Amino acid sequence: MRIALDAARDAALAGEVPVGAVVVRAGAVIAVAANAPRALRDPTAHAEILAIRAAAQVLQADRLGNCDLWVTLEPCAMCAGAIAHARLARLFYGAADAKGGAVEHGVRFFGQPTCHHRPEVFGGIGEREASALLRDFFAARR
Amino acid sequence: MRIALDAARDAALAGEVPVGAVVVRAGAVIAVAANAPRALRDPTAHAEILAIRAAAQVLQADRLGNCDLWVTLEPCAMCAGAIAHARLARLFYGAADAKGGAVEHGVRFFGQPTCHHRPEVFGGIGEREASALLRDFFAARR
Repeated sequence: MRIALDAARDAALAGEVPVGAVVVRAGAVIAVAANAPRALRDPTAHAEILAIRAAAQVLQADRLGNCDLWVTLEPCAMCAGAIAHARLARLFYGAADAKGGAVEHGVRFFGQPTCHHRPEVFGGIGEREASALLRDFFAARR
Repeated sequence: MRIALDAARDAALAGEVPVGAVVVRAGAVIAVAANAPRALRDPTAHAEILAIRAAAQVLQADRLGNCDLWVTLEPCAMCAGAIAHARLARLFYGAADAKGGAVEHGVRFFGQPTCHHRPEVFGGIGEREASALLRDFFAARR
């Protein structure tokens, strides 16, 4: 999560909402990404999506069955769907997101009968730092 | 929808689940994509995601506010989330998807309070042909 938080800080410095994500396989980091929809001109360029895509390139596979995703913010519906498609084994996330989250809020995607793959989910990891990054970012822009 | 169905046929020929998507702006097609997670080694490479990303590149913007998405199959949660993030004005889709759909099935994402943008939605357009493509594809693989 330390690496994901560093990526979130990079996002903030670039003027993006500070969220970072890391894909880990067998104890090794295989992809790191910072949220970048503005820089990339890509509405899908959340940290999770970028990290999943990068990891899939590293493994040359469209499924990441033995991999874990670490992300500083509770994933949204788009990212939760991508996590299921990627067949990620475990999801570790930091701050909860009552507005846009889709894991413990909103559609609670992994608990739905139409969800075809449920990772093990662990929330609240590095939550304080992840939340502070987001709070400071939005406070500075007000 | 004719163009999206042609893209779906291309996907089937490439061994991918036959789904095609098109982004239209002011009556002009600005992006066309076929479902390609296997070929691209990318679990997020649904037709909708690829079309949205391509359209955003064309417009050099991370929002597609004056654009419509045409897709041959009811979008999943990942793609419904991406449609909301992209602020697409209207969604036209073909076949309903009781198993993986997230518009009229499953999480019914656009009806959720945590959904921050709701396109106008029109389902069942070109449904018969879109469904036949999917049925033939899966029948041939059994």
